Amino acid sequence: MRAIVFDNGLALRRDYPEPKRTAGESIVKVLTAGICGTDLELTRGYMAWRGVLGHEFVGRVVESENRDLLGRRVVGGINAACRRCRFCAQGLGRHCPNRTVLGILGRDGAFADLLALPDENLHPVPEAVPDELAVFTEPVAAAYEILEQKAIPRNHRILVLGDGRLGAIVAMVMAAEDYDVVVAGHYRGKLAALSALGLTARPESELTGGYDVVVDCTGTSAGLSRALEMVRPRGTVVLKSTAADGANLNLAPAVVNEVTMLGSRCGRMGPALDALAAGRVDPRPLVSDVFPLDDGRAAFEAAGKAPNFKILLKIS
Amino acid sequence: MRAIVFDNGLALRRDYPEPKRTAGESIVKVLTAGICGTDLELTRGYMAWRGVLGHEFVGRVVESENRDLLGRRVVGGINAACRRCRFCAQGLGRHCPNRTVLGILGRDGAFADLLALPDENLHPVPEAVPDELAVFTEPVAAAYEILEQKAIPRNHRILVLGDGRLGAIVAMVMAAEDYDVVVAGHYRGKLAALSALGLTARPESELTGGYDVVVDCTGTSAGLSRALEMVRPRGTVVLKSTAADGANLNLAPAVVNEVTMLGSRCGRMGPALDALAAGRVDPRPLVSDVFPLDDGRAAFEAAGKAPNFKILLKIS
Repeated sequence: MRAIVFDNGLALRRDYPEPKRTAGESIVKVLTAGICGTDLELTRGYMAWRGVLGHEFVGRVVESENRDLLGRRVVGGINAACRRCRFCAQGLGRHCPNRTVLGILGRDGAFADLLALPDENLHPVPEAVPDELAVFTEPVAAAYEILEQKAIPRNHRILVLGDGRLGAIVAMVMAAEDYDVVVAGHYRGKLAALSALGLTARPESELTGGYDVVVDCTGTSAGLSRALEMVRPRGTVVLKSTAADGANLNLAPAVVNEVTMLGSRCGRMGPALDALAAGRVDPRPLVSDVFPLDDGRAAFEAAGKAPNFKILLKIS
Repeated sequence: MRAIVFDNGLALRRDYPEPKRTAGESIVKVLTAGICGTDLELTRGYMAWRGVLGHEFVGRVVESENRDLLGRRVVGGINAACRRCRFCAQGLGRHCPNRTVLGILGRDGAFADLLALPDENLHPVPEAVPDELAVFTEPVAAAYEILEQKAIPRNHRILVLGDGRLGAIVAMVMAAEDYDVVVAGHYRGKLAALSALGLTARPESELTGGYDVVVDCTGTSAGLSRALEMVRPRGTVVLKSTAADGANLNLAPAVVNEVTMLGSRCGRMGPALDALAAGRVDPRPLVSDVFPLDDGRAAFEAAGKAPNFKILLKIS
């Protein structure tokens, strides 16, 4: 099958072996996939990844023992848990220490004709939700995860640092949930685009501090230093993006101001899919371009360019 | 008056100007003071401090408009707040943006014959509490602050990283509050001394992870990386010490494991003094040596040596 593989370099392969499903897993034919900042970090060395990239997708189940899934259009949670450890016993498969993670850890990803995931990870997509909306389920779930981790009062002021695809989606979700949210970044064009979507977007250089919650979506470790400048004493900084590189950080301001820094990763797919199906969140205006899988390398180049938000791959 | 002053170098001065009190402040004659890791960091450049060092003390009020304080032996909260801003209005003077901090920010400290603090910062010490116990009120308050910030279930396993004076006091407080706590460090002699005090002390190299709460008292920014290895997914790392230097940190593990990192600084003096007076916490065995103020430089040298815990200054 075709697959975008990272192995010291990024390549489209046409002879990549098809995934095998084990008991309780299904094979999904990928329809559309999205490129995320984590994919770019993986090509820079994050997680020492080797294999098929990609973890945001919508596809159709083509092989399964589960009759309710076979033939269905689905999105999928990316953490494949062992179902035997104490985390799994607590319903915390996303933190199972034995897990594989689609396109990130020990399991080939979604930028390919086919992928394998456990049946329990797959969520059928309502007919009314088109592929280019359903493909946003994973990042929208990651944004909702913030609200699942922390009860943020509705009168708290939220700042999203980063005008990239992740910052935009987090800001959209916070706005959809009626929070007073500002999204800030460096790119005038992107900020104008976000304003046109009804979001409050500000140049990062014009910010003044005192926010109750700052969500760092900059994708750079240095974003935390800026977040610590912007958050009020005893406020919360949510760390939403991962980077391959460390940064020289002095966390004394976090100690002195008693800031809570909250790492935040994947969320539940079901509620995110519901929010998309109900029209509460619609990130489709963030699609900057769509490439066929055969142009995967060009798609990655586009995803790395500052003016772009989300780049999609149309796979079949 | 005499004072230990840091101004590019550490010096004992005998002609240092006496502090002036403003309205609502008292003058305290310092009896005994303690050297803290923050004092050592200040001599390495932290906070760009210039002036009299020291913020852990017990003394006697020698000048005050407040008759309830005059002549009393007292300990003192170190944050002098403006009492006019919105933080002060919320009772959060410790986070007042206009505050001065004794021996740390804009207010000369306790390693001197006299110091000035607002009356409201001063807490009379019961007669039964000797100077060498009362002098621990500030660091014991800082340890209790953790429990004021976060409700930690009693069945959670707590790891204190760092076998220095701060780690020892935090471990003592956690043990006194009936937590299952392990204190870990690098120095066999210190670990043996902590074990002799009834604490569970372990060589840092022998630790295995999975702790619910890890308190970083290493005094180095690099301690956080180790804490992130030791905490379970969705656990909490408490950042309890400040360092002058930054460190190259990659916080991806905190994001992936959704760890909460909680900055923690000063606590309330009253409850800490109560714990000392009631005998619930007794850090006196941690006193490694006592120096007269005139030997202040030797005291700082001793405080910087690994085998020592707390070094006290006997001032008058």
